[in-house]
Amino acid sequence: MSVLPKALAFDVFGTVVDWRGSIAREAAPVLVAAGRSDIDPHAFADQWRARYVPAMLAANKARAASESTAFVKLDSLHRTMLDDLLATLDIDLDDSTRAELTRGWHRLDPWPDTVAGLTRLKRRFPIVTLSNGNISMMVAMARRAGLPWDAILGAEVAGAYKPAAQTYQATAAALDVAPGELCLVAAHHADLAAARKAGLMCAFVSRPMEYGGRPAPDRDAVQAWEYSATSFTDLADQLGC
Amino acid sequence: MSVLPKALAFDVFGTVVDWRGSIAREAAPVLVAAGRSDIDPHAFADQWRARYVPAMLAANKARAASESTAFVKLDSLHRTMLDDLLATLDIDLDDSTRAELTRGWHRLDPWPDTVAGLTRLKRRFPIVTLSNGNISMMVAMARRAGLPWDAILGAEVAGAYKPAAQTYQATAAALDVAPGELCLVAAHHADLAAARKAGLMCAFVSRPMEYGGRPAPDRDAVQAWEYSATSFTDLADQLGC
Repeated sequence: MSVLPKALAFDVFGTVVDWRGSIAREAAPVLVAAGRSDIDPHAFADQWRARYVPAMLAANKARAASESTAFVKLDSLHRTMLDDLLATLDIDLDDSTRAELTRGWHRLDPWPDTVAGLTRLKRRFPIVTLSNGNISMMVAMARRAGLPWDAILGAEVAGAYKPAAQTYQATAAALDVAPGELCLVAAHHADLAAARKAGLMCAFVSRPMEYGGRPAPDRDAVQAWEYSATSFTDLADQLGC
Repeated sequence: MSVLPKALAFDVFGTVVDWRGSIAREAAPVLVAAGRSDIDPHAFADQWRARYVPAMLAANKARAASESTAFVKLDSLHRTMLDDLLATLDIDLDDSTRAELTRGWHRLDPWPDTVAGLTRLKRRFPIVTLSNGNISMMVAMARRAGLPWDAILGAEVAGAYKPAAQTYQATAAALDVAPGELCLVAAHHADLAAARKAGLMCAFVSRPMEYGGRPAPDRDAVQAWEYSATSFTDLADQLGC
C-alpha cells in the first residue's frame, strides 16, 4: 500500500472519456453527407488522433524556441490536424462543418464507471483535470457528461503541453501540494512515465476499449506504478473512498 | 430585459461568501488565546480586509514594473497583511498560528442563498469564479461549502489581480466567449465598474450584511447594471433558470 496522495489529477482523453467512439459518432454523419461512406468513422477518429502527439511536441517546441510565441489551444490544434487529415483523404468540407466537427471533442462520452468513480474519489480527494484539452473544452465536456471536477487545470493553465514536466509541476503548484503529493490518474503508461519523471505519484487505470480492443501504442512502457486499477470505482476502493 | 450572457463569472469575497463573519469566527479563539479579548473579532476582520485593495494594487504595480516579477498568490498577500495588522495591534502569534489563521480564508461560509442559487444558475450557464483568491483557496472553499463551480478562473489564471482589465478579459478568453458575452456577478459596484470598462456585462447582487449592516465603501459607485438582484435565487429567477 502506497502513501496516500493529497490530490488526484486526471488525464482525460481515453482515461475519463471514450474519444474514439465519440469522435466516430460525430464523424459518421459528416462522412455520409460528404459522400464518403467508404471511410470507417472509427478509422477516421484514429487517424485524427494519430496527429495528436506530434502536434503537442511541435507546439511545445515552438514555445521553447521563442518565449513570445502565444500558447495555442488544443481546439486550434485539433482544427489544424483535421484540415490535414481531410486533405490526405481528399474530403472537401466547408468551414462551418469543420468547426462543428472540431467541437465534437467537447462532446466526448465518459466510460461507464467514470461519473460514479469520480463522485466517490471526490469525497476524499480534490479531483482536477490534468489534460492537454483547453479550459473551454474541459468545461463543456464536464457539463455535458456530469464530471464533478474541483478545478480545470493542465496544459492551458500551465502554458505547456504534456509530456513537458512543467505541465505536471504547475498543476501541483496551483494546488499548493508538492509534486510527490499529487497523483496522476491515466490509462497511458507514457503519460504516467512523464509524470513520474516530474515527481508525481502515478495511478494506472486500464481502458482496454480505448483503441477498440487493439493494444495501446505505449503498452510496453509499463512500470510498477503506485496504484493500478481496472476502473475508477476500483481505484476508489483502493484509495478507501 | 437585457440580452442573456453566455456564461456567469462570480466575485467571491462578499458576493458568494461572508468573509467578515467567517474571519471573525476564525479569529475569535486566537485573540482570546493571545490574551486580547479586548479586540472585537469583527473589527479585526475589517482591519485585515482593509489592507486588501492596497495590496492588490501594489501587486499589480510590481508586476507591471518588471515582467519577470512572479505572480504572488493571495494566500501570501493575506499573510503579509496579517503580519502588518498584528504588528499594528501589538499582538504576538507564532508562525503556525499565523499560517492557520491565514488559512481561515479557505473556510469562508456561503450566504444562505448561495448554493441553491448557484445550483439553479448552473443548469443554464457555465458558472466560474472571477476572484482574486488563488486556485487552492477557491478549491478548498468550494469543497467545504459545496459550491458547484464549472471552473476556477480569475486572478491566478489571468496572472493579474482585479481591477486590472486583463483579469476580466482573460477569464472570457479562457471560456472562448467575447467579454460582452460574459457577465460578472458581484456585490461591489467598484468591481462591476472595472468589469464594464473591460467590456463585460454586469449583475449586481446586494449583500447588505457584508459589512455587518453598515454601508459598503463603494455604495455611491452605482450604475445602471444589466441585472440587479437581491440574491442568487432572485438572479436565477431573472435569468430564467
